[in-house]
Amino acid sequence: MRDGDLLVVRLSDGEDLFETLKQALKAEGVHAGIVVAGVGMLKEPGIAFYKGGGEYEPVPIKEEVEICALAGNVAVAEGDIFLHLHVTLGTSSGAALGGHMTGGKVHMAAEIAVRILQKPMSRVLDEKIGLRTLRFE
Amino acid sequence: MRDGDLLVVRLSDGEDLFETLKQALKAEGVHAGIVVAGVGMLKEPGIAFYKGGGEYEPVPIKEEVEICALAGNVAVAEGDIFLHLHVTLGTSSGAALGGHMTGGKVHMAAEIAVRILQKPMSRVLDEKIGLRTLRFE
Amino acid sequence: MRDGDLLVVRLSDGEDLFETLKQALKAEGVHAGIVVAGVGMLKEPGIAFYKGGGEYEPVPIKEEVEICALAGNVAVAEGDIFLHLHVTLGTSSGAALGGHMTGGKVHMAAEIAVRILQKPMSRVLDEKIGLRTLRFE
Repeated sequence: MRDGDLLVVRLSDGEDLFETLKQALKAEGVHAGIVVAGVGMLKEPGIAFYKGGGEYEPVPIKEEVEICALAGNVAVAEGDIFLHLHVTLGTSSGAALGGHMTGGKVHMAAEIAVRILQKPMSRVLDEKIGLRTLRFE
Repeated sequence: MRDGDLLVVRLSDGEDLFETLKQALKAEGVHAGIVVAGVGMLKEPGIAFYKGGGEYEPVPIKEEVEICALAGNVAVAEGDIFLHLHVTLGTSSGAALGGHMTGGKVHMAAEIAVRILQKPMSRVLDEKIGLRTLRFE
Repeated sequence: MRDGDLLVVRLSDGEDLFETLKQALKAEGVHAGIVVAGVGMLKEPGIAFYKGGGEYEPVPIKEEVEICALAGNVAVAEGDIFLHLHVTLGTSSGAALGGHMTGGKVHMAAEIAVRILQKPMSRVLDEKIGLRTLRFE
């Protein structure tokens, strides 16, 4: 649902978070945005810690988790929408995990809000740090 | 304080977070929104992990905590404003806890920002997952 | 980059997060705002837990960390821009830490979004709780 410059996306059980969010953005013609809120649950969540040199250390998570916070942005990289998301997860004990988000399927339901930007944002590889950093032109 | 489509709410020591936020939303005639930021502290915080079938496993927290992140949304369920909030909490050791927020009183102070939506959002029970999921009509 | 009421700030390796964000806000003439999203990494991160009476208990963090979530606001205190930020950090093991943010240098890169407010916000010391609380006039 779009309300002015805000896109609210409702995701259903089993949906791939990245793919479903990308599809919703494409359906609205959005190429740049800021992920301002995300709640719900994930199964098969993927988070990772950046070690440098383009390499991430994956953090194994076997259980279903609550999405406590989701933040990041939408830009264009190599002609396609690119989502850069960091996530905070709540386990069944309440202990929180967090890091760079690499994937995950929605468990039960999820709700994500994206502030749509009119100006373009892209990502270009910065060889010094091994990451595609944000560009505003 | 309302600034265009953003409502900034300042909460004081001892106030119930859900009740005070609801009152501030009602005072502005807001029935739909996205909680985009929240900081401050809580005492008697309530978080829980969703087990399915409409049941949450409560996570006991005895201490006062920092609110590291607060996210979620405002919709209408059964004729009243319904807040769906997830929270990340910082304990005195720095270890973070997080989950679905079930309650909490403000400790010292808290500051919450809500992006007001013009279009309605409601919640209707989805019997398959046992939760009231978000609807846009 | 400014897109209407949203300021997107890209920070580079080694930059002081507070100083760089303040400079970006000043360059746009922003005196009030809400930090709605922040991702990236930090080195020498500083977080703390508020004990009351104006005293914070610092939480020692020696390692580089992911910024999982960043929230807070921009106001004016004693004639200068004042950032009140809370942060959730992801360590290399995935365990999350969080609290009131006292400082930190960007590791690799960081991306922060601020919703600019037109109405002023200031901070004035509330002697009862020992904190400079938010005021809307």
